[in-house]
Amino acid sequence: MDLNTISSPSFLKNLTKKQLQELAADIREFLIEKCSGTGGHIGPNLGVVELTIALHRVFNSPEDKFLFDVGHQAYVHKILTGRADQFDTLRQYKGLCGFPKRNESEHDVWETGHSSTSLSGAMGMAAARDVQNKKNFVIPIIGDGALTGGMALEALNHIGHEKTNMTVILNDNEMSIAPNVGAMHNMLTRMRTATPYTKVKDDVEGLLKRIPAFGDRLASTAERFKDGLKYLVVPGMFFEELGFTYLGPINGHDFDALESTLQIAKRTEGPVIIHVITKKGKGYSPAENDKIGTWHGTGPYKMETGDFVKSSNQAPGWSKLIADTVSTIAREDDRIVAITPAMPVGSKLESFAKEFPKRFFDVGIAEQHATTMAAGMATQGIKPFLSIYSTFLQRAYDQVLHDICRMNLNVVIGIDRSGLVGADGETHQGVFDISFLRSMPNIVIMMPKDENEGQHMVKTAFDYDDGPIALRYPRGNGLGVTMDSVLTPIKIGTWEVLSQGKDATILTFGTTIPMAQEAAAALAVKGVEVEVVNARFIKPLDEDMLHALFVAKTPIVTIEEAMLQGGFGSAVLEFANIHGYDTSLVNRMGIPDEFIEHGDVDLLLNDINLTTEETIKRIEAVVEKKTKQAGLKA
Amino acid sequence: MDLNTISSPSFLKNLTKKQLQELAADIREFLIEKCSGTGGHIGPNLGVVELTIALHRVFNSPEDKFLFDVGHQAYVHKILTGRADQFDTLRQYKGLCGFPKRNESEHDVWETGHSSTSLSGAMGMAAARDVQNKKNFVIPIIGDGALTGGMALEALNHIGHEKTNMTVILNDNEMSIAPNVGAMHNMLTRMRTATPYTKVKDDVEGLLKRIPAFGDRLASTAERFKDGLKYLVVPGMFFEELGFTYLGPINGHDFDALESTLQIAKRTEGPVIIHVITKKGKGYSPAENDKIGTWHGTGPYKMETGDFVKSSNQAPGWSKLIADTVSTIAREDDRIVAITPAMPVGSKLESFAKEFPKRFFDVGIAEQHATTMAAGMATQGIKPFLSIYSTFLQRAYDQVLHDICRMNLNVVIGIDRSGLVGADGETHQGVFDISFLRSMPNIVIMMPKDENEGQHMVKTAFDYDDGPIALRYPRGNGLGVTMDSVLTPIKIGTWEVLSQGKDATILTFGTTIPMAQEAAAALAVKGVEVEVVNARFIKPLDEDMLHALFVAKTPIVTIEEAMLQGGFGSAVLEFANIHGYDTSLVNRMGIPDEFIEHGDVDLLLNDINLTTEETIKRIEAVVEKKTKQAGLKA
Repeated sequence: MDLNTISSPSFLKNLTKKQLQELAADIREFLIEKCSGTGGHIGPNLGVVELTIALHRVFNSPEDKFLFDVGHQAYVHKILTGRADQFDTLRQYKGLCGFPKRNESEHDVWETGHSSTSLSGAMGMAAARDVQNKKNFVIPIIGDGALTGGMALEALNHIGHEKTNMTVILNDNEMSIAPNVGAMHNMLTRMRTATPYTKVKDDVEGLLKRIPAFGDRLASTAERFKDGLKYLVVPGMFFEELGFTYLGPINGHDFDALESTLQIAKRTEGPVIIHVITKKGKGYSPAENDKIGTWHGTGPYKMETGDFVKSSNQAPGWSKLIADTVSTIAREDDRIVAITPAMPVGSKLESFAKEFPKRFFDVGIAEQHATTMAAGMATQGIKPFLSIYSTFLQRAYDQVLHDICRMNLNVVIGIDRSGLVGADGETHQGVFDISFLRSMPNIVIMMPKDENEGQHMVKTAFDYDDGPIALRYPRGNGLGVTMDSVLTPIKIGTWEVLSQGKDATILTFGTTIPMAQEAAAALAVKGVEVEVVNARFIKPLDEDMLHALFVAKTPIVTIEEAMLQGGFGSAVLEFANIHGYDTSLVNRMGIPDEFIEHGDVDLLLNDINLTTEETIKRIEAVVEKKTKQAGLKA
Repeated sequence: MDLNTISSPSFLKNLTKKQLQELAADIREFLIEKCSGTGGHIGPNLGVVELTIALHRVFNSPEDKFLFDVGHQAYVHKILTGRADQFDTLRQYKGLCGFPKRNESEHDVWETGHSSTSLSGAMGMAAARDVQNKKNFVIPIIGDGALTGGMALEALNHIGHEKTNMTVILNDNEMSIAPNVGAMHNMLTRMRTATPYTKVKDDVEGLLKRIPAFGDRLASTAERFKDGLKYLVVPGMFFEELGFTYLGPINGHDFDALESTLQIAKRTEGPVIIHVITKKGKGYSPAENDKIGTWHGTGPYKMETGDFVKSSNQAPGWSKLIADTVSTIAREDDRIVAITPAMPVGSKLESFAKEFPKRFFDVGIAEQHATTMAAGMATQGIKPFLSIYSTFLQRAYDQVLHDICRMNLNVVIGIDRSGLVGADGETHQGVFDISFLRSMPNIVIMMPKDENEGQHMVKTAFDYDDGPIALRYPRGNGLGVTMDSVLTPIKIGTWEVLSQGKDATILTFGTTIPMAQEAAAALAVKGVEVEVVNARFIKPLDEDMLHALFVAKTPIVTIEEAMLQGGFGSAVLEFANIHGYDTSLVNRMGIPDEFIEHGDVDLLLNDINLTTEETIKRIEAVVEKKTKQAGLKA
């Protein structure tokens, strides 16, 4: 069918099984084609085609509430709720969001992006329903990977205790972003191969009849024996112990199995967990055969072959460069280990893992545990490289503060995807870390201007032994600069003058340096000489340089691809204020007090005035202001 | 024995059982007496006397590592490692810390304060040991309450997967801070009453022999039957499923049971969890009979009777005042619910819970879940009052940002224990929330000057319907002011001039207002007229007032009992900077870039120069600076 004609999921209720299968095929074809152009989370969505259709047939959205955990698997839901015609703009500026978005549709009742929030959100919605004496269903859909996130486990514990009515869909594809790890994963694997309840019921009853009557002496054991039998017939005893009714495992690509089980769940009192086995990438062989997570989320690809469209930038990716430098140093220093919360592929730690298998720890989606485990290792003289995306480090705020910074432990935090990330949008922008880390005592925060400085900063971080040190680096590729063959540590708290200029100074770091240099070049033509400083240490600041600048009453523009409140520019203001300097010649550029949506980073930067043109304007403004002030005094 | 003579735990190895029992009695007597004078976590420590002695007999600290989760149950450990003589200074300024502290003893290898970190820390230490090819034991001691914290569950999942050697002590006292909730708690209750392994083993073997041989048809069922039998003999199958060897339950006050089980654990490969049943408050009847958690942590009390020594301040406590106002408004507005992560007593929500049992949610130690559950409820038109201590809100940083602020949901966050908290020390100071919340879009942050304004702010918060709003209030009691009978909302972003003064202005809020007023009074005597402003909205600021102040080139001192970096004073600097005002006449007072230890709050404030005297100096400095500037221009 023409998917663009869908305006609401209600049409699904009248389809025959054959029509459903045709629809599933149409949706797969549509997704494979559209994502080949835009990129996106194709693998997860191909896995949930039948599941999403079945959910919309059995339940009534939006009265019944679907909460897609993480949310990148909501494409089918978006198609079925009337948004197929927007898929050409998927994850693009002002286009369709790659995650559920409440302002897109009444069917998107819960926004996600970070993992493991759906059960808590669902408990909130279900509790609200009960307080309001309503009758709707609440259906969180959570992957086996997301289930290991601490807050999902907190929610299971609470939901099971309250016995709240809820239908949890456990979408078990044996792989979340990378192959899953963890005891719970191993347990699910055992459950997956277990015979479902109905099939063994008869056998067990037969078995029971063959056991002779118990003597008195065995009475209490017999009681426990009856309990024990539950474990025979219910593979999901783990969930039953927590207070859930476990149904499954069922084939997530079988409409009949899905619908009949969902109907049972609807009739069951209390919380139900349906264990649905799906195949990630189902129906598209390049994605289906993926073993390591390459097809979890992709850029554009050639539909016929599954070959990825190469980026024009051939410089090494930041994640790989940093991870490989960690490997290089780890060859000489056996105290170095690497820890990742489920991001071995994204963080490019595969080589490290292969070379140092005993010194590599993928802890699953568990940022809190990863961070405090790093602290524990550091107490014993190990030097952990804790690799976390900026946006996910938010999950470990307290662990960084309470466990690492407070004990002043030598942990190197590699903050990947710092700054705007683009297509993943507002849940994934790495723009808060400076504001939240800067108020923590004992931490050093730095960001390199290019990949060569990046490798020296890795060395700097491991040489440093006076507490935690955070190395921020952006998403994407380096600048293609020449790499030094010898790694040299950089003195903590020292900035670098990139170009001289007596009229004004730009203080900036990382990705915004080229913009600063362009602005300086443009102003040079106009006769305004602008100094550009690589303010590579965000904490501590280069106080000597700042003293000199303020004493000379230099007009200063600070630029950061991070929140303005409490950010680097504010640190400069605070410094000046402590020392009694006037700050009226300081102008701060950065991210305003709002969430930044998805889209091409350059377009986003343009939207928030983080541009070369704006930099030029700001410099001209502070230079003019200085001239005026001088005039007033003269 | 004289506990003051203990210098190391090695003496324990040579004691007879009778001597051990005498020692336990001596320790109890010592603790009851010392804590009656200083206050402290008497209940938890009385429960772990035999357990701590047994641990120090079976293991060799500090080679073997004890990690006390939360850490308030480490008093016995402190006594056994040579610190009895410091107990008169317990939790006092420059005195013995109420939690493990690495600079106090080589036996304190892991510092805690916040819950649920011990398993991750232990995994880090055990992984370090294995990387370093060492052989020591790692022993986290965690309560049944702390086990429900998400990061502890993340750690269980990882440890069980890695099969790392470790002895986890599950100290199950059926109650952590308040009576425990959660499915896991219910499960533990079932385990607690189960017959231990060894006793049923014989019975089960007898039973097995009486089952006839299985026919072929039943072969696969028989396989599962064998697995199922494990559930018969091992009460802790939940933990076994996760990859742990479960031992117990054992009586935590029985030296023989403790030592023999610890010895088994030492010989067992892989992670072991020992389920130890203890009685909180054991040996001191007022504490032993406590049903709601009153004796978890106390102030001074009369040893003979267990009567608490009354505080001289008879004004209502902040927690109770705020909670009762929530109840008052909830009587008129059935959209209001209250959520607490295991703090019904501390947050004084017992009355609310009693009056509105269906609208009250104690989710256990699970700040992340509590916060996102509040978000879920808010999506459905409920107005949740999420009550969390400032220091524990750190655990929910990402949930406040990603779930509440990003979706701009109407959640009222009651931030209890904001500011310095005193005796609990550096892990519990509520001084980071302003810095970390202020960079989050959409949130309103406010703090009242007294309890009367506090009640109006509760009204303000529930009337507000444009997103999240945080209401900070301090530990301790109000000022004893007259309470208005009618609740009136305050206009968002408006400050209040408390006293006029043309020479300088103090901008401050909450607990530091009296200090500002004292300073103003002292300066009035010297002829300096100081305006004192109740800057009750930290975000958004009162921009009209700030414009007026900066236009008039008013010398300004900002005061906050919170981190200076990124704090309220910085917000004032940022405002001035955005509008091009000179900030050289602004002087900020607050908490410097360091962790603040335990002790009487007034002494701590004195240490960090948050005093009336310093305020006077700062005002004189900015006033003098203005005079100089005027002189230069003239």
